Amino acid sequence: MSLYRTADQIKTMQIRGAGTIARAAAEALSEHAKSLDAPDIAAWKSEMQTAARVLLDTRPTAVSLPNAIHVVMQSMENAKTIPEARGAVKIAASSFISSSRNAVAEIGKIGARYIRDGFVVLTHCNSQAALACLLTAKEDGRDFRVIATEVRPWWQGHKTIQTLHDAGIPTDLIVDSAVRFFIKEVDLVIVGADAIAVNGTVTNKIGTGQIALVAHESRVRFIVAAESYKFAPETIHGKETLVEERDPGEVLSPGIRARLPSVRVRNPVFDQTPPGYIDLILTEFGAISPHMAYAIMRDHPGWQIQG
Amino acid sequence: MSLYRTADQIKTMQIRGAGTIARAAAEALSEHAKSLDAPDIAAWKSEMQTAARVLLDTRPTAVSLPNAIHVVMQSMENAKTIPEARGAVKIAASSFISSSRNAVAEIGKIGARYIRDGFVVLTHCNSQAALACLLTAKEDGRDFRVIATEVRPWWQGHKTIQTLHDAGIPTDLIVDSAVRFFIKEVDLVIVGADAIAVNGTVTNKIGTGQIALVAHESRVRFIVAAESYKFAPETIHGKETLVEERDPGEVLSPGIRARLPSVRVRNPVFDQTPPGYIDLILTEFGAISPHMAYAIMRDHPGWQIQG
Amino acid sequence: MSLYRTADQIKTMQIRGAGTIARAAAEALSEHAKSLDAPDIAAWKSEMQTAARVLLDTRPTAVSLPNAIHVVMQSMENAKTIPEARGAVKIAASSFISSSRNAVAEIGKIGARYIRDGFVVLTHCNSQAALACLLTAKEDGRDFRVIATEVRPWWQGHKTIQTLHDAGIPTDLIVDSAVRFFIKEVDLVIVGADAIAVNGTVTNKIGTGQIALVAHESRVRFIVAAESYKFAPETIHGKETLVEERDPGEVLSPGIRARLPSVRVRNPVFDQTPPGYIDLILTEFGAISPHMAYAIMRDHPGWQIQG
Amino acid sequence: MSLYRTADQIKTMQIRGAGTIARAAAEALSEHAKSLDAPDIAAWKSEMQTAARVLLDTRPTAVSLPNAIHVVMQSMENAKTIPEARGAVKIAASSFISSSRNAVAEIGKIGARYIRDGFVVLTHCNSQAALACLLTAKEDGRDFRVIATEVRPWWQGHKTIQTLHDAGIPTDLIVDSAVRFFIKEVDLVIVGADAIAVNGTVTNKIGTGQIALVAHESRVRFIVAAESYKFAPETIHGKETLVEERDPGEVLSPGIRARLPSVRVRNPVFDQTPPGYIDLILTEFGAISPHMAYAIMRDHPGWQIQG
Amino acid sequence: MSLYRTADQIKTMQIRGAGTIARAAAEALSEHAKSLDAPDIAAWKSEMQTAARVLLDTRPTAVSLPNAIHVVMQSMENAKTIPEARGAVKIAASSFISSSRNAVAEIGKIGARYIRDGFVVLTHCNSQAALACLLTAKEDGRDFRVIATEVRPWWQGHKTIQTLHDAGIPTDLIVDSAVRFFIKEVDLVIVGADAIAVNGTVTNKIGTGQIALVAHESRVRFIVAAESYKFAPETIHGKETLVEERDPGEVLSPGIRARLPSVRVRNPVFDQTPPGYIDLILTEFGAISPHMAYAIMRDHPGWQIQG
Amino acid sequence: MSLYRTADQIKTMQIRGAGTIARAAAEALSEHAKSLDAPDIAAWKSEMQTAARVLLDTRPTAVSLPNAIHVVMQSMENAKTIPEARGAVKIAASSFISSSRNAVAEIGKIGARYIRDGFVVLTHCNSQAALACLLTAKEDGRDFRVIATEVRPWWQGHKTIQTLHDAGIPTDLIVDSAVRFFIKEVDLVIVGADAIAVNGTVTNKIGTGQIALVAHESRVRFIVAAESYKFAPETIHGKETLVEERDPGEVLSPGIRARLPSVRVRNPVFDQTPPGYIDLILTEFGAISPHMAYAIMRDHPGWQIQG
Repeated sequence: MSLYRTADQIKTMQIRGAGTIARAAAEALSEHAKSLDAPDIAAWKSEMQTAARVLLDTRPTAVSLPNAIHVVMQSMENAKTIPEARGAVKIAASSFISSSRNAVAEIGKIGARYIRDGFVVLTHCNSQAALACLLTAKEDGRDFRVIATEVRPWWQGHKTIQTLHDAGIPTDLIVDSAVRFFIKEVDLVIVGADAIAVNGTVTNKIGTGQIALVAHESRVRFIVAAESYKFAPETIHGKETLVEERDPGEVLSPGIRARLPSVRVRNPVFDQTPPGYIDLILTEFGAISPHMAYAIMRDHPGWQIQG
Repeated sequence: MSLYRTADQIKTMQIRGAGTIARAAAEALSEHAKSLDAPDIAAWKSEMQTAARVLLDTRPTAVSLPNAIHVVMQSMENAKTIPEARGAVKIAASSFISSSRNAVAEIGKIGARYIRDGFVVLTHCNSQAALACLLTAKEDGRDFRVIATEVRPWWQGHKTIQTLHDAGIPTDLIVDSAVRFFIKEVDLVIVGADAIAVNGTVTNKIGTGQIALVAHESRVRFIVAAESYKFAPETIHGKETLVEERDPGEVLSPGIRARLPSVRVRNPVFDQTPPGYIDLILTEFGAISPHMAYAIMRDHPGWQIQG
Repeated sequence: MSLYRTADQIKTMQIRGAGTIARAAAEALSEHAKSLDAPDIAAWKSEMQTAARVLLDTRPTAVSLPNAIHVVMQSMENAKTIPEARGAVKIAASSFISSSRNAVAEIGKIGARYIRDGFVVLTHCNSQAALACLLTAKEDGRDFRVIATEVRPWWQGHKTIQTLHDAGIPTDLIVDSAVRFFIKEVDLVIVGADAIAVNGTVTNKIGTGQIALVAHESRVRFIVAAESYKFAPETIHGKETLVEERDPGEVLSPGIRARLPSVRVRNPVFDQTPPGYIDLILTEFGAISPHMAYAIMRDHPGWQIQG
Repeated sequence: MSLYRTADQIKTMQIRGAGTIARAAAEALSEHAKSLDAPDIAAWKSEMQTAARVLLDTRPTAVSLPNAIHVVMQSMENAKTIPEARGAVKIAASSFISSSRNAVAEIGKIGARYIRDGFVVLTHCNSQAALACLLTAKEDGRDFRVIATEVRPWWQGHKTIQTLHDAGIPTDLIVDSAVRFFIKEVDLVIVGADAIAVNGTVTNKIGTGQIALVAHESRVRFIVAAESYKFAPETIHGKETLVEERDPGEVLSPGIRARLPSVRVRNPVFDQTPPGYIDLILTEFGAISPHMAYAIMRDHPGWQIQG
Repeated sequence: MSLYRTADQIKTMQIRGAGTIARAAAEALSEHAKSLDAPDIAAWKSEMQTAARVLLDTRPTAVSLPNAIHVVMQSMENAKTIPEARGAVKIAASSFISSSRNAVAEIGKIGARYIRDGFVVLTHCNSQAALACLLTAKEDGRDFRVIATEVRPWWQGHKTIQTLHDAGIPTDLIVDSAVRFFIKEVDLVIVGADAIAVNGTVTNKIGTGQIALVAHESRVRFIVAAESYKFAPETIHGKETLVEERDPGEVLSPGIRARLPSVRVRNPVFDQTPPGYIDLILTEFGAISPHMAYAIMRDHPGWQIQG
Repeated sequence: MSLYRTADQIKTMQIRGAGTIARAAAEALSEHAKSLDAPDIAAWKSEMQTAARVLLDTRPTAVSLPNAIHVVMQSMENAKTIPEARGAVKIAASSFISSSRNAVAEIGKIGARYIRDGFVVLTHCNSQAALACLLTAKEDGRDFRVIATEVRPWWQGHKTIQTLHDAGIPTDLIVDSAVRFFIKEVDLVIVGADAIAVNGTVTNKIGTGQIALVAHESRVRFIVAAESYKFAPETIHGKETLVEERDPGEVLSPGIRARLPSVRVRNPVFDQTPPGYIDLILTEFGAISPHMAYAIMRDHPGWQIQG
């Protein structure tokens, strides 16, 4: 699959989820490098930069995308020849992909320990890291139930219940509005993250902030599962995470919109959860307080250069 | 339309909204009385009781339904002949219907005064009393904008944006999950009610409690528009308002459900908002603190007998 | 039993519990009237006043005591002869006692409706009105569990678990400090009251305010069961309910105290719960918002004269 | 005293308090090593492991116990002969004991500075580190008063008031339930800790969480005094601190329990205080925000291996 | 003094304070009636209406002004002759003035009971009703201290400290910003009110809402002293209390303003305190929960007609 | 200007603002060193110590003063001759001054990024670091409005509006009491700091804590701009930041004070804001969570020695 097709699939959300996007971008760069030719190494690098930019411009919010691209692109920096650069990109991409997968697995192991027999765990959207916690807990023999939301407008909840069903985990599906109704039954909320700011603010799927508030009101634990490349070191320097607003057509059909010209659809994809509503962030390096986000950024400096 | 058909349409939500249901039930009893015959007045009354029971059993939560039926049925109590009873039922039903319509209009006038030029007002679901406030404010020349939610699973928000569009009120449509994202733009939330308990707890469309919490977190005013027959005097005696759970098919198609046997859909239609999150309840008798719900019940004793 | 002995037993807490004290005082006045003689009706009344004062001085906090005495004493006001006065006192006392018992029974019926199958209900101290809710729910066939606290320093919790055991209600006993540990299991807290102020502040057994705060933090319902003679109308006029501090010997033995002269024991018997932490107050006239306490005082004016 | 006797005394709480337990275990291992013999070093080490396991199994919650045992056991790892191992264990044990004592003294110095003339300081249970703050403040000439709780079911408050009395610090003793009643008089709360999780959650004597909540409600400072070996690095990896439930006989006598078969005693020894209610944690390395617990764990890696 | 001069003095705040304004307006109408002549009673009444309008237009917020004018104007309604009308106005004005003074005195008696020996009471602005509580407590022999704010921009605090000094009450003066710094020393806050809405929202001097929030954060009691003519029954019908913005010259001198054209002064005179931050409202009819404001409006219907 | 004159100007607040004071002190020491002579290097150093002490004693709260003095004084430690010491002091002072200025500029760049087009930003007092954010945002072309408080008793707000006016930033001036009235219009609060404790507590101009609370109540972001020498490492060791109380004459004229002997003026210059109300602290090393204050202290150890 060409890099441009990958970019398009990211843009149209055929490829989605912060980790999946990051790995697809790394893979696309690696593939692109394989076939790309150019008169000299400088020209080659410049074409790679152009390609990287195409990927970068697909989605503005999830920080895993620039983090992945950065890691891959940085690898070719000192290459003197095209084959050397190609090799470096290939290694960097495959190393990012495998360490990203390992991170999810590691988080799954840590998160599974918070799920006890008899628990009810609520999740929102379709986070691989959050699901890893649930699936690992099931593999570890834990007996629990999940409540999953629908997740308008993209119905990611339907993917989630499919995964949980396949793993044999009993699951309740509810509309997004019903979280406060059911929260008294819930022992633990686990969600993923698209970007984590220096002060622990978590940007994640629209609705997450509301759920965190509801959990806080009823003193229910709220845990975020996030690989370290979800941390956004540029927030140290004041660059805030932008929230993408997508096409109104995802929410309301063109037909109805045409009939109702004074109605505007607003379709933000993410929202922000303050650190005060988060008990723990689970990373592949362990569980931390959300207020310690800066420590992850500083101790794992690979991601910090673009700040 | 026969009473049984009305009952069926209420049950299947073709007829919906607490006030509309109440008026439809009053109308159905009146029509039923018109054509009903029986050997004697006792038998006639007994048949009417049976018919009333059919209507009562359609929906368990909205208190306007039993309140309306009670008012109509009580009117025939002292009737000695069938024609006398028919007449009484007819008068009581039409009086209930008109006073119900007046109540909505009166609330509209009161509520409109809380909407100032430049305001952004958020509403949830499709409450006639809440819409009356918006429409009256528009008629009064106020210049404001509305944010309306989709309202899964029944998409009542689509009805709401149609009404607002027809009235020329600029409106934003958002998914139910996005309320916390937009709340900083909002000056006022207005919603309706299906039942109000003696301590001011408001039962309304699923999602309302979440919105009230979000408004409270950001110190945004939250107002409930509710005709007096939404107050549930039986809560004085400890009978709590039950929350109806409806068919899973409203949330997830039978096809998907068949494929995912370990997934259960939970579909509560309403939730509960505590009085501490409500600034005002608007009734046709004026605005009150939610904590004064008991005063409305006591001062307007028509509804209190079934307690 | 002489009035002086009753007074002594109230003072030493052999007779305890706000309702029991009130009824014992009414009974003691009635008995006292029976045997009391005097040269004339004025002298007789004056002796009764002295006797009433003895009872009044036994405990300073629970408002049921002055309310009961007031009702009984007021009855003899217009009596012209000693026999007439005796008769009036007897009737008033027995009427107070029976209406007090009825009030407890009525509250039991209302409160029982809030207890659903599967519930865990927490109670503190040994309130007859609160227990009536539990016992009635059991009689009504409800299947639930109770968590009871020890209630230092007087171990009233031991009386409570005896009563619950006798009724066949499964019960957990915990130390007073453990309420926050178990609150996530709790669906409902029900306690009694010694005095209720005009703004809904509830004075009850030491520890109640802490439990209410804990319930509020976890969004667990908190209900107060209180007969109408627990309302303190003198708070309308600014007279606050005093909290009795009792003998240090109830908390620490004289032996240890003698050894530790720089240690002072402080032993307040009651504390105060603000209305914001209370969902409902159950009276024999129905459930109300705590903020409506004034309405009970005004609508049931029997208790208001001593303000 | 044999290691088995120490283990027994820890189990039965004759030896109690997280620091005391830790030092007793280190001492017991050192003594055990002195007399223990075996055919060869491998067998000797294996016997030591068995002995360590006996100590470890005595109490499940306080993390100082495994931390101490870990430090002592790790010292013998590279020993080639039994005498060498014995020597290493002896040095490690005595070094742990003295650095533990120094930690308490150091915390005392830091904590004393937060106590000003005229202050009222509330403490709960019988923490050596918390008491060190009070005793040092007294030695520094500060003039203040303490409020101490009883601490059911083990009455550790009685030990505390003895210590404070001996130091000449004026002290009030109150029942555990009375904290909210007195909190308005309090300037500062200081308590100890049995285990501190990576996100700053403090596990301490049952009742601590309730007191922290009460202090938070009234904006009273809440400080935890905790030597660094109270930090539980295994929480980084998702292993949560278990709360021990002890024998019902500690709460209710066997006689009463026999008479009340439907009554169950629940006797958790600890509870958990969230970091949001804690102003500072005082360690021997200085005062920190509870959210910085991870930094202590990382900077003082001695304790981290068993994660 | 002519009615126009009174109006001018109210407008320029030479006459200020909600009660003082109300009494001055009543007096001015009475004086105006005395000297006013007209061809016939209809013309006379019409001139009086004009005069009343002049007074009404002076200040928009304090509801005591329209309430007083309404009471006086209503008295002449049925008068058939000018002398009769004059007499009615005179009686109504003097009756309003004396009952207003009595209301302040009565509130003083009630409020004084909340002030105990050793208390520190904070007040803001220069409310006669709030001061009456302090002065009465002093007369009753209570030993307490007051903290008074400066009250920018009009320095009403300087008037307050003069009054307190004259009464021999020890007083601390602080800047408006320092309330949170001193709140831990405070036992009680007492302020006045300019208008009270149906749901208990209190409109009072700018800064009051901030102080109420600060008191709430530290669990310090907050009491509002307000004569019943401060209640605004028109809020039942949705007419909100407007907050007056006054001349920038009160905040910044014309000289500086001329030099800084891009600086705008905003000078709102009042703000709003939500009922959730108010423990009690003291009226001449007794203390009530702020949520009961509607009950005062309904039970004392004199003020309700203009709704 | 002599060191003594600088000291005097700091004391009388002719020189004010934490950064300005720090730089003036460094400059004064440098100048003092230039002209100071002594028999030998030991005597010279001792005279310098005396001079440093004079500066240190001028103001007790702002930690930048001792931090600056410490840095300058430490530089001469190893000097063997007077000229060598003079040189070292000169370099250290000028290096402190320039890095202090750079810090302000760097913070300005970071903070400016948080200010978006259309924003309303509230500031209190006259912090150079906070102003740098506003001025840089303006230079970056951002279109926003500022609300500035007056800042009693020193009217620092007047300096602030002058600066903002000169930069062409539209600004509203309000009294300190009006913050809660306007907070709903505010998108962001930015203030400076005089001292930051190890747990993130910020000591700043009186009124700051109140504003932070108000912002928190309405979920408005609250940011502190603070150069790293505002962090107080001695708080690690329990030495709390003292709040200076200044002369009553700053608040009330001697004339009025003489007339009102029972009135006492209390004039604290600073107050404390807890970390829970602060979203971010901006330092020259980037934005951090307030809970990470310890990390700044540890990573930038220059300031830590005097703890």
